[in-house]
Amino acid sequence: MKIVVVGSVALDTVRTPFGEGTEILGGSATHFSCAASFFTEVGLVAVIGDDFPAEHIEFLKTRGINTAGLQMVDGRTFRWEGFYEYDLNQAHTVDTQLNVFEHFKPQLPEEFKQTEFLFLANIDPELQLQVLSQVNKDAYSVCDTMNFWIERKPGPLTEIIKRVNMCLMNDSEAREFCRTFSMLDSARRLMALGPQAVILKKGEHGALMFTDSTHFAAPAFPIEEIKDPTGAGDSFAGGFLGHLASTGDLSEPNIRRAIIYGSVMASFNVEGFGTARLTTLTRDEIEARYQVFRDITWF
Amino acid sequence: MKIVVVGSVALDTVRTPFGEGTEILGGSATHFSCAASFFTEVGLVAVIGDDFPAEHIEFLKTRGINTAGLQMVDGRTFRWEGFYEYDLNQAHTVDTQLNVFEHFKPQLPEEFKQTEFLFLANIDPELQLQVLSQVNKDAYSVCDTMNFWIERKPGPLTEIIKRVNMCLMNDSEAREFCRTFSMLDSARRLMALGPQAVILKKGEHGALMFTDSTHFAAPAFPIEEIKDPTGAGDSFAGGFLGHLASTGDLSEPNIRRAIIYGSVMASFNVEGFGTARLTTLTRDEIEARYQVFRDITWF
Repeated sequence: MKIVVVGSVALDTVRTPFGEGTEILGGSATHFSCAASFFTEVGLVAVIGDDFPAEHIEFLKTRGINTAGLQMVDGRTFRWEGFYEYDLNQAHTVDTQLNVFEHFKPQLPEEFKQTEFLFLANIDPELQLQVLSQVNKDAYSVCDTMNFWIERKPGPLTEIIKRVNMCLMNDSEAREFCRTFSMLDSARRLMALGPQAVILKKGEHGALMFTDSTHFAAPAFPIEEIKDPTGAGDSFAGGFLGHLASTGDLSEPNIRRAIIYGSVMASFNVEGFGTARLTTLTRDEIEARYQVFRDITWF
Repeated sequence: MKIVVVGSVALDTVRTPFGEGTEILGGSATHFSCAASFFTEVGLVAVIGDDFPAEHIEFLKTRGINTAGLQMVDGRTFRWEGFYEYDLNQAHTVDTQLNVFEHFKPQLPEEFKQTEFLFLANIDPELQLQVLSQVNKDAYSVCDTMNFWIERKPGPLTEIIKRVNMCLMNDSEAREFCRTFSMLDSARRLMALGPQAVILKKGEHGALMFTDSTHFAAPAFPIEEIKDPTGAGDSFAGGFLGHLASTGDLSEPNIRRAIIYGSVMASFNVEGFGTARLTTLTRDEIEARYQVFRDITWF
């Protein structure tokens, strides 16, 4: 397998100033794997309840996503309900129902264990640790998280960060976890735990990448019409790791290009509710937007 | 004259999480002209009271700034008092005393009227209009403003925007003035009034430039230690117009380079309280930081 992702598959109810969606396909692993599927093969590890619509599984399969690690168990699927006001960088949670995730024990199919890349999407860090322990030690591992886990499970989260090759976080989450205002300082504190690189996602302001010796600043795409920012960070990660895994090149220039591909995928993701925009997206559209990033950044 | 600037010269009292300064040299025209003075000749149009410390005038002169348009009148100098919390993008005003600015009638010295560039720094838009009417019609004019004037004098402010070549604003101010969340939409609404280009300043997130056909996104410099963000936008404008005026080149590639020089000057400005960092700054340091911008943006 090129990439294995563990994270949530969810039914999201989302309201933004530009519309709403009720029980639409969502979750960190969903957004990640849909984005990554435009670049390479992805194996999905998650759990759904027996109420999960069959059409969503069909959609994941049409995207070429390997669902052998998607367990269906008795009970209700994970649900998240939230809204955004005009500051679309800030999600306001109305309700989180873990449901089947409360007793989830991830079991990786054999073909997933020899993956080249592992993405630990936003989910309980104890589940991230369980998955990390099942894949081969040479897998290039990247983790993400959110404020929910920073506040509730700082210990397991720190353990995960210590053990991955790269750490992704939102800027506000990095500030909260590292207890510093400075992005540079946050990145250094995260790298001091173990990762060789840190990517800080800043929503509409783009993303920053830090290693011990370099720094890269990518803008966000100037989007005409944002419909729903949910999953932007996961789509970013999917485009990012999708490009890295499809090229197998971990050099700094290629990591920079991967960040731009991640930004491209995030920009498409927010143009529709849930995964709507990705259902019609083409590789040509992805490449065209990559070129726009060149146009808006040269000097 | 290469550049004429009208704006405030002030005594600022500022508190940030990293220190404080009491009645230090500040004001939009001060920060602008100090930054621009590293690139070209600048003529300053402003008013001060009879309490203004002579050492500050000496400092402006040592920077080569032409103070023939700096009127000293009876009364107290303009004062601003404010503080910043950890979100350094947001200034909290404690007190604004217009003092001598209440009855200021800008009179341009003859040698200022044939200026090549005019910067209408943040100040009452009615004063901006008075200065604009005194310079030759071929001057390339750029305006800035702040929420204070958007709320109190939207009419004269709109009039100024209609008449300048380029408009600078903070992102939050553009949103407020244009009544839209989108940066792209804000820029288009501003350009619809007249300006050929709009630059939206985003503090720690860099700056965006829009024309009717192009878009440029510049990151901010990854600063080790921010002391005081006051005047960052004015320093940005000073470096920006300083480079444009010193080269006399209004092509898009040069405007992009000018935005990077603006970002460089803003990054130095925030490393000290008031104008402190600029007192020791060298042109070599400016060029070195310009190169860092290349390093952090290529892909």
